[in-house]
Amino acid sequence: MKISARNVFKGTISRLEPGAVNAEVEVDVGGGNRLVAMVTSASVRSLGLAVGKPVVALVKSSSILILVEGDGVQLTARNRLDGTVTQITDGAVEAGVSIALAGGVTVHAVITHESVLALGLKVGGRASAVFKASAVILGTSA
Amino acid sequence: MKISARNVFKGTISRLEPGAVNAEVEVDVGGGNRLVAMVTSASVRSLGLAVGKPVVALVKSSSILILVEGDGVQLTARNRLDGTVTQITDGAVEAGVSIALAGGVTVHAVITHESVLALGLKVGGRASAVFKASAVILGTSA
Amino acid sequence: MKISARNVFKGTISRLEPGAVNAEVEVDVGGGNRLVAMVTSASVRSLGLAVGKPVVALVKSSSILILVEGDGVQLTARNRLDGTVTQITDGAVEAGVSIALAGGVTVHAVITHESVLALGLKVGGRASAVFKASAVILGTSA
Repeated sequence: MKISARNVFKGTISRLEPGAVNAEVEVDVGGGNRLVAMVTSASVRSLGLAVGKPVVALVKSSSILILVEGDGVQLTARNRLDGTVTQITDGAVEAGVSIALAGGVTVHAVITHESVLALGLKVGGRASAVFKASAVILGTSA
Repeated sequence: MKISARNVFKGTISRLEPGAVNAEVEVDVGGGNRLVAMVTSASVRSLGLAVGKPVVALVKSSSILILVEGDGVQLTARNRLDGTVTQITDGAVEAGVSIALAGGVTVHAVITHESVLALGLKVGGRASAVFKASAVILGTSA
Repeated sequence: MKISARNVFKGTISRLEPGAVNAEVEVDVGGGNRLVAMVTSASVRSLGLAVGKPVVALVKSSSILILVEGDGVQLTARNRLDGTVTQITDGAVEAGVSIALAGGVTVHAVITHESVLALGLKVGGRASAVFKASAVILGTSA
């Protein structure tokens, strides 16, 4: 499988809360980092998702927000991964930003050029990658 | 808090409809503009969301569509804010478009370069910003 | 109606599974291609959605992932449309990719420049457009 999502996290399901329509699935992606995905209960059944099963968690870079100076801030987005900015690729409208997490995992975000300026992002600075559980797609290989 | 979402609307919760898994939260952002957010019921509890509470509503510019000539059109997207185009920043693939709403609030969208041409967008023209309730993240400060 | 979503699929509702909060709506867009949309039950009522009703299905190009070499891969994303790459427009950060499906429908995606390289995408190659049911907005005209 090759997929255009810049973020393809290999991990293992560490928690699964089934619901009538949607299920919440937590994936341990190593280095102490856990993602939460919201998927349909139909998908849980068709993919045979269960605690302990290896999966890939896919997140488009355009689904990720970057937060700095976030002490005391609470967000409804379920995923917030703290790290260090390692790369900024700037364009006319959008910019790509890479954040290295603990344990060697890197998260890639695409944000607006304006936001890079407004946040004062620079390589080496601390930043958090924020994304909703509904932005995560889970995959399994046969 | 500094966050990369170009749209950070300060407002107050004006309505909250709890559900088993998700809750619908309406936020009054001033100027007669109200947003609808769909968040998890777990987030409602953990952030202590309630009518009257001040919040910020975050929407990534890439989550916003722009509609023109929308008379008689009905969409399943819950948010539709009417205004006037104030700025267009064009790139090779994507373009940034700013829409001023009544009351001084501005919405920033990123759409494709092709769509700017197809819609005939120009500064001063009328346009609506359209986005799903699920595209909104709510935040509170400690 | 003119809307900035690059993907505006005209079709007819072929299946509708109501739920307490959300409904799953399948839209036949011709050429044997069917999309699945997740919308709120409130929208089903307000738009009068029902099997047989003509609708447009809107999907932002930035909501679409591109998958190649996907044999045996299962994803929680409900939509996966197979086709052939017909155009690639590359930018500094993002790239636009068009995929022609069976029956003459074309899907437009915006992915990162890096992903075009990583996937080895080229015009004429096989590729699948992948997107979540929650990324689809349905519309009707008066």
